[in-house]
Formats: sequence, structure tokens, C-alpha cells
Amino acid sequence: MNKSCIIAQSGGPTAVINCTLLGIVEEAKKMGFEHIYGALNGIEGVLNHRIVELTNQTHDQLQLLMSTPGAALGSGRHQLKNAEQDPETYQHIQKVFESLGIDCFFYIGGNDSMDTCNKVANYFAKTNFNCNVIGVPKTIDNDLQGTDHTPGFGSAAKFVSTTISEIYVDTNSYKKGRVTIVEVMGRNAGWLTAACKLADLSNTPVDLIYLPERPFDLNSFLQDVQAIYNKKQKVLVAVSEGIRDANGQYILKTVAQNKNDSFGHTQLGGVAQTLCDIISEQLSLPVRHIELNLLQRCSAHISSAADAQEAYNCGVFALQMATQGHTCKMVSMFRDSQYHISLQLKDIDNIANAVQIVPDKYINEQGNGITDDFVTYALPLVQGEVPQHYKNGMPQYYQLDLPLVEIKL
Amino acid sequence: MNKSCIIAQSGGPTAVINCTLLGIVEEAKKMGFEHIYGALNGIEGVLNHRIVELTNQTHDQLQLLMSTPGAALGSGRHQLKNAEQDPETYQHIQKVFESLGIDCFFYIGGNDSMDTCNKVANYFAKTNFNCNVIGVPKTIDNDLQGTDHTPGFGSAAKFVSTTISEIYVDTNSYKKGRVTIVEVMGRNAGWLTAACKLADLSNTPVDLIYLPERPFDLNSFLQDVQAIYNKKQKVLVAVSEGIRDANGQYILKTVAQNKNDSFGHTQLGGVAQTLCDIISEQLSLPVRHIELNLLQRCSAHISSAADAQEAYNCGVFALQMATQGHTCKMVSMFRDSQYHISLQLKDIDNIANAVQIVPDKYINEQGNGITDDFVTYALPLVQGEVPQHYKNGMPQYYQLDLPLVEIKL
Repeated sequence: MNKSCIIAQSGGPTAVINCTLLGIVEEAKKMGFEHIYGALNGIEGVLNHRIVELTNQTHDQLQLLMSTPGAALGSGRHQLKNAEQDPETYQHIQKVFESLGIDCFFYIGGNDSMDTCNKVANYFAKTNFNCNVIGVPKTIDNDLQGTDHTPGFGSAAKFVSTTISEIYVDTNSYKKGRVTIVEVMGRNAGWLTAACKLADLSNTPVDLIYLPERPFDLNSFLQDVQAIYNKKQKVLVAVSEGIRDANGQYILKTVAQNKNDSFGHTQLGGVAQTLCDIISEQLSLPVRHIELNLLQRCSAHISSAADAQEAYNCGVFALQMATQGHTCKMVSMFRDSQYHISLQLKDIDNIANAVQIVPDKYINEQGNGITDDFVTYALPLVQGEVPQHYKNGMPQYYQLDLPLVEIKL
Repeated sequence: MNKSCIIAQSGGPTAVINCTLLGIVEEAKKMGFEHIYGALNGIEGVLNHRIVELTNQTHDQLQLLMSTPGAALGSGRHQLKNAEQDPETYQHIQKVFESLGIDCFFYIGGNDSMDTCNKVANYFAKTNFNCNVIGVPKTIDNDLQGTDHTPGFGSAAKFVSTTISEIYVDTNSYKKGRVTIVEVMGRNAGWLTAACKLADLSNTPVDLIYLPERPFDLNSFLQDVQAIYNKKQKVLVAVSEGIRDANGQYILKTVAQNKNDSFGHTQLGGVAQTLCDIISEQLSLPVRHIELNLLQRCSAHISSAADAQEAYNCGVFALQMATQGHTCKMVSMFRDSQYHISLQLKDIDNIANAVQIVPDKYINEQGNGITDDFVTYALPLVQGEVPQHYKNGMPQYYQLDLPLVEIKL
């Protein structure tokens, strides 16, 4: 097949963003693509002519992508202006693609990346440039519309639930413990924080779980904490970094302002730390705050096999659909009642810039816990473990070490 | 064999403290011990008569201990006064042991626990009570004297080095990155922070590593950070929580006091956060701080198989030595030049309360990095992975669900 494609990655990496890259590359190789290119650091790589050729990478080299975190092609956060405002950029992209004979362009990313796909595909349509553009989603936040879930979420959920489960077992070692507050990523949607509910399946239930979807009431929170502590002499809490008060203001900021009023300085640190300070001050209970931080998106050593396989399959499907002539679409996942996942294409313009929040049925009435319905939803996403590549006890990763392709415009 | 033993765990858990417990229990079962007891929450369990019998636990139940973090018998921090000051406590312990017919007592713990062993064993010697006391070390800090290394360190080192390696790969995805500072446990000794050097073997070298063994100079640090950032547009730093300035004062406290002077408030957060604030203020570079926190001691899902096996072997050896009549000893590990580990007994009184710091040969001249000699030392300790018990994608742990034994004094 006398075809060529180019792939780029963008936005915050996930533990399985490289599985999608591998799926596209392997399917393109299988179909006999002449050239398989990778643009470095997202769309910027196209604009700066930082492009490599992956066509001759061996199976053994590429296999490491299945357990390599980060974005193997490098990531970026460059956002394109509208083509009307900045036609030169779009002309430039098209010229680079023409010079390389690109037939299809794959962008693996989140909301912003789907926006880029949309703009580029629309420009190509307008200029009748025959290059199919397909977006493949990734985000640990699981907050993309038009898909049952996003590749990357399952692995982050497996890390978060396993880790909070281990924290439970550890902190449970003491008769008289602390209030331990674990802060989970998710500014606008609480999917990943909700995953802490999966710890029930390890017999290590988290006492209180708070998502941004419900207003956070500090007094109820303090009452709940005190009541549980009285009973068990320890409390395990999971909070989303994005929890807000009834006025929609981040708890972190609210408290900061109050502190400013009374103490004349700004509170530092995350929401877990802030809540610990309040508990320490108002309830005089021993506290500990834990921010899971970057580990949530990069702990590839405990990726979900189901997630990694789905991420890979999305890449394969993207390549197949582009080859069949589809463009300006995003790959999405649809589930039937038995958790059979089928892949579909969705119009990108309906998806970009819309946030999918956790529905009411997954949050308990008091707003301090997660329902079993959520477990039914999330459990298939964390199944299985990905074989790791260890050498001397240390993980081995895919190393991109390829010369830049010469671009002649 | 008409013998009975009792086991307790104390201090901060490690990922493999239960492997030692399993080693003792399985060896006692093999030798036909009549009763194998566990005291809950350390020596407190003896004093409060919170004791269970493990003798009839099945192999399948017990096997879960190999991958269960926390202290399965519960941990404690109770410290005994001297027998001269508080003879009643020691009489009480002896009476409980007599009532159960205890022949040997095993205490799995760190420095303080060895002190407890020492006191109890000396009291038994004085009263001619025939019960052999053996301490088995555990600590992720690796700062115990009289042993090549401590069970628990290898698994913590594997978690820390793997995680910082993943953080490297993730943060390396961006062309223009941040100064990322990872805070590692270790108040008095930098062994675990030094383990970040193992990331070299994943081709993900950490730029700067600071241990408490060398005075931390803020100006040199800022210069180093700026120079590396100028070159690479990102910097990855590992710091021990215990780093101190030339006056021996914790960096955290030093800065807090300075802040108190200039802004009238106390700086919150850990040392990584403090250093990030300084970099942000003085170098205006983008920063991110990550505290690995409890995860360092409870991430059993990525335990080192070598460490787990050694922890188990230490338990087996402790049982054998007690049975052979040894008492008031600690199990220690000795290595030959080929990393063959042999187990030995050491006098406890020489060990308790002494700290083993990282020797000079493992720290580079500038005090901002670790030598290859350390890699030679530490690499055998992180070899292999422990098979995990997953069910439905979630880890399954040993659950202690046994009635308390009736104590008749």
C-alpha cells in the first residue's frame, strides 16, 4: 500500500498513551504503509520540522511501548488559532504533509487535541487536501464526552485504587491512627477519585470520598470525620483536587482567603493539606495528607491490561478508519450490558471542549461516598496486569533515538 | 515438638514485614510447634492480653502474607521502661508467657523494637525464665547497624527508583519542563534517597540527589538547578526529608524561621515544597514537588522478590536459632563479594539505638549525587518481582480474623 501517515501525541501523558501509538504503528506496518512518521511534541513537531520515521523500528523495540509511560514522541500544549486568524500556520502544516506525502494524520490527546484535529481537518477539507484526520482520546480524567470511558483512565484508576488500598492496610496497622486524606487528580470531574471505591474489593474500604460534582460542605465533613474517628480511631478520606464549596469556589482558595483574613498570609499546598490543617486546628486529631500527584498518570508498572489493550485497539481502529476514508472523527468506545466494547467514530466537533462529569447515580445521597453502580461501571476497566520489561530489577523503557527526517518544502 | 512461640510486630511497617512473620510461622509449623501465637500491636498485645493463635491457619491463607503490606498482627510504638523502674510490666509479660507456655518470643521491628527485645531478654535471664528472645530487623530506612542491609529496604528502594524513573519519563515528554523535586523518606540516613541512583539503569538518570549525610548548601543547590535547567529546560531532583544545613538544622526549619522573620508566618509543607517555593521565588522557574509519603513503605504491589525472600529467610532463621537455644540476639545479614547473603546472630545491645548512615564512598564529592559503588551495593536488593494476588483486578490481602486467646494468669 503506497500510503504514509503521521502520528503525534499531546496533553498530559497517561500510562497507556504509547499503547495507542503502538496500535497505529503496528497496523500501518501490517497494511504495508510506505512511511510511518512521528511528529515530536505534538503539532509543534510538524511546525518545527521535528519529525522522525518509525517505519523501520523492530517489533522488539516497539513492544516496550506497551509498558512505557510518558509520551514516547514527546508531548506539547500548543494550541492552534482559527484558520481564519492564522492561515499561514495551516498552510505550513499542509505543505509539510504534502512534502512527506501524508495520507492520514493521527492525534492522540485530550480535549485540546481534539480541537486541533477538528481545525486541521476542516482546513484540509476546505483546501481539498486529501489527508484524513482521526483523533484518539487519552486522559486519566475520563471526562471526555462521546465515549463510554477514555484510554488511560483504567490504568490511573488501578493505580489509585491499589495505592489507597495499600494505604488502608498500612494505616490500619495501628490501633490509634490518624485522619489520612489522599488527594486525587481531577479539577472538573471526579472519576478518578471515585475509583477509590474499588478498594472495597480488597476489603479495604475508604471511609469518605468527595468529588467536585457535589458542593463540599466543611461542617458536614468535620462532623463525618469526628464521628468515624470516635468509632475507629482512624479515618481514610479521598478528595478530588477540584472540590468546591456551594458557591462553586475551590476549597483551597476559599480557605486561603479566610486564612488571609485572620492570619494575614496565604495558605500553601493542596486541598488535602488544607483540610488536614483545618482538622488539626478544629478537631485536634492527628492527620496526614498524601498527594498522589504525577504518579497517577505515569505508574505504568501497574497499568491495567484491559486499559492497555483498549488503548492499543483504539490505535488499530483509527488507522483502519482513516484508510477507509473517514476524517474529522474521534475514536470512541461503546459498551453493551456485558462489557463488550465496540469502537466507533464520533464527529469531533460535538466532543471537543465538553466535559463529562460523574452522573448522580454514582454518588451517594450524602455526597460523601460512591455507589456500587460505579463499581459495576469501573471494575472491567482495571482488569489484568501488563507484563513489564525488567532488566536487573529495573524497568526498561522505549527510547526514541531516531534522526529527524529532512523536510523539503 | 512440644514447644510454643509468640510473635509480634512493631514500628513503621514495610512492604515485607509480613514475609518475616510468614517465615517464622511456617518454620514453626514445619518443626511441629504446638502453639504459634501472635500478639496484636506489638508488646502492647501481650500487656493487654490481645493475643491470637496462628497455628491452624492454612497455607493458602498464610501465603497472602507475602504480598500484604502493613503489619498483619498490627503494629505499635509502645516503649518499655527499664525493668528497674517498672518491674510490674516485666512480671506481667512473663506471667502471660508462662500461662501460654511460651518457649520463644520473636519481635519484628526497628531500633526501638530491638531495645524492647534487649530489655525483655535481660529480664528473663535475671529471673531464669526459659524463653528465648530473638529480634528480626525491618526498616525501609536501612539505618540499622550490624547488618549489611535491612529487610524492607530493598522493596522501598524498588518502589522509589521505579517511581522516579517513571516520573523522569513522564516529565521528559515536554520540551520545556519544570524543576521537579521528589521528597524521599529518611530523617537521619539517606539510603532510600540514594536508591534514586538506580534509575540510571532505566536510562532515566536523576539530575541531583541530596542526602542528610552531607550539609545542604542552598546557594550551590540553586546554582546547580539553574545550570541544568539552562541546558535541558527541565531538572529532576531527589531530596531526603532529613537534609540539614551546615549547622545541622533541618532545611525545612531553617527556611520556616527565615519566612517567619520576613513574612510573619510559618512555612508549611515538606522540604521539597519548601525548596520549590525558593526556586520559584529566586530563580522564577516552573516547579513541582512530589512527596512519596507512605507509598514508600506500603507499595507491596512492587515489592522486590529478593527482599521478600530475605525477609522470609530471616524469619525462618530466627525460629531455628531460638529453637537451638539462642536468646537476646538480632538476626543480621552478611554479604560476601558475590552477593551471597548469610544469616548471622548479633548481640542486640550493640545494635539498638545506633544509626548506620550512608558511607562517604557512596556520595559524590560535590554532595549532589551518588556513586556507582552504591549501585553495586543496592542492585542485588531490588531484583525480581513478587507474584501478586489479584481478584477482579484488585489486590487481595491477608485478613487477620481470629478470636483472642483466653489468658488465665
